[in-house]
Amino acid sequence: MAVMGHVSLVGAGPGDPGLLTRTAIARLRAAELVLYDALIDERILKYARRAQRFYVGKRAGRHAMTQTGIQTLMIRAARRGKRVVRLKGGDPFVFGRGGEEALALRQAGIPFDVVPGISSAIAAPASAGIPVTHRGLASGFLVVSGHDEEALGSTIAQLRPNGVTVVVLMGLARSMAIACRLIDRGWARGTPAAVIVDASTRQQQVWRGTLDQLAAGSIAAGAAAAGTIVIGDVVAVGLHGARDANDERRGQAGFESVKSH
Amino acid sequence: MAVMGHVSLVGAGPGDPGLLTRTAIARLRAAELVLYDALIDERILKYARRAQRFYVGKRAGRHAMTQTGIQTLMIRAARRGKRVVRLKGGDPFVFGRGGEEALALRQAGIPFDVVPGISSAIAAPASAGIPVTHRGLASGFLVVSGHDEEALGSTIAQLRPNGVTVVVLMGLARSMAIACRLIDRGWARGTPAAVIVDASTRQQQVWRGTLDQLAAGSIAAGAAAAGTIVIGDVVAVGLHGARDANDERRGQAGFESVKSH
Repeated sequence: MAVMGHVSLVGAGPGDPGLLTRTAIARLRAAELVLYDALIDERILKYARRAQRFYVGKRAGRHAMTQTGIQTLMIRAARRGKRVVRLKGGDPFVFGRGGEEALALRQAGIPFDVVPGISSAIAAPASAGIPVTHRGLASGFLVVSGHDEEALGSTIAQLRPNGVTVVVLMGLARSMAIACRLIDRGWARGTPAAVIVDASTRQQQVWRGTLDQLAAGSIAAGAAAAGTIVIGDVVAVGLHGARDANDERRGQAGFESVKSH
Repeated sequence: MAVMGHVSLVGAGPGDPGLLTRTAIARLRAAELVLYDALIDERILKYARRAQRFYVGKRAGRHAMTQTGIQTLMIRAARRGKRVVRLKGGDPFVFGRGGEEALALRQAGIPFDVVPGISSAIAAPASAGIPVTHRGLASGFLVVSGHDEEALGSTIAQLRPNGVTVVVLMGLARSMAIACRLIDRGWARGTPAAVIVDASTRQQQVWRGTLDQLAAGSIAAGAAAAGTIVIGDVVAVGLHGARDANDERRGQAGFESVKSH
């Protein structure tokens, strides 16, 4: 009888390989098969020296592999005795469909574990000098995904204006609609807002403005779909460029380019 | 003229030393002075081999050092050329007063950086098999602190019943009041709820029940103030004990004791 393998659902963090956890690195080093998504840095994949690596994310809007296909592949490999790592950007349980994959593994009787990763929901704002909570400014934060427009709309519609920090992951394509909806609900037009693309990497770009500017489409053009939007008074707390004034300079299309830490 | 030092605000994660990031470990190894809070594991502090270590957290409800005292100490040490690490549980910008400390450093002209950590807001539920988001169950999550009762009340009061997952950090002492308020606002009494104490460590304990049971004080007695409360349908997604049935067993006072991963 074949020895049963194992699957680890591993969070790769926001991009910077320095933000991998020790356990994530250990799982990658031991892996024989790695299934990875878009936006995973090549330097992170290099930890999986002994592993076959399969890209299963999106290419030009189309999935390289269906969700069912990914789950079937993981389960088959584990049944053949393989140590599998399912590598996801950020944290596996924050809009990563990690819950669905874990359920499929459980139903198939495959041993698995979940290794949390640094979520962009917190680290993308941080890399732009924005704390998601701050005494006197925000006593909590709401994290939503821009992918599910209906759910997003009903979730942000219920918020008391300017009550908590709102973080939208994967929502750049809908930034105008999101900002318009918040203004309709009574949020101040001058509420500070920021957009962070390629957070924590050398390519990081930051846009800063107001809800009004977001609603007017200031950042809509050409923005990658994977950016993070932050809305709330914490955006203006004044920490950006804190390390070195030369760290931030104006980039194209109103984005600042920020060097990696 | 003395060489200027440097301060790193470093997130230590939820407890398990395996959930430290590579960058956090590098900062600890290089540190000459470490100022740390409660709930930091001794194995994490051991990375700071060369450093003087000062405990600046709470003891029996009293602060070992005031917030101003901590900031003054960091600034003075950096001015003397020291490499300082300010080590915080979880992430520095999630209810860690990291924003205030960063502002103080900036105003004093001290070079600093912020190293994100794995937040208990996501990792504590995950370590109990609870994904904070799940397709069809929760399209977002709200993170609030139990410390500020007034802000907490006004924040959760605005939520549409059973709309998003609610995560309350440091709120065990107020779990009855929080649950009562949600029920008053129309949340279903049978909404699944969980409490995780000492997440990700060998001492981890998990309580699972309903909003109704939380409101009745099921977990109020003897619970440490640092636990994480999760409320929402994701609690019942059915992933706990997935790795091995022996991993979860009934503990005292309705808590399950769960071995560390």
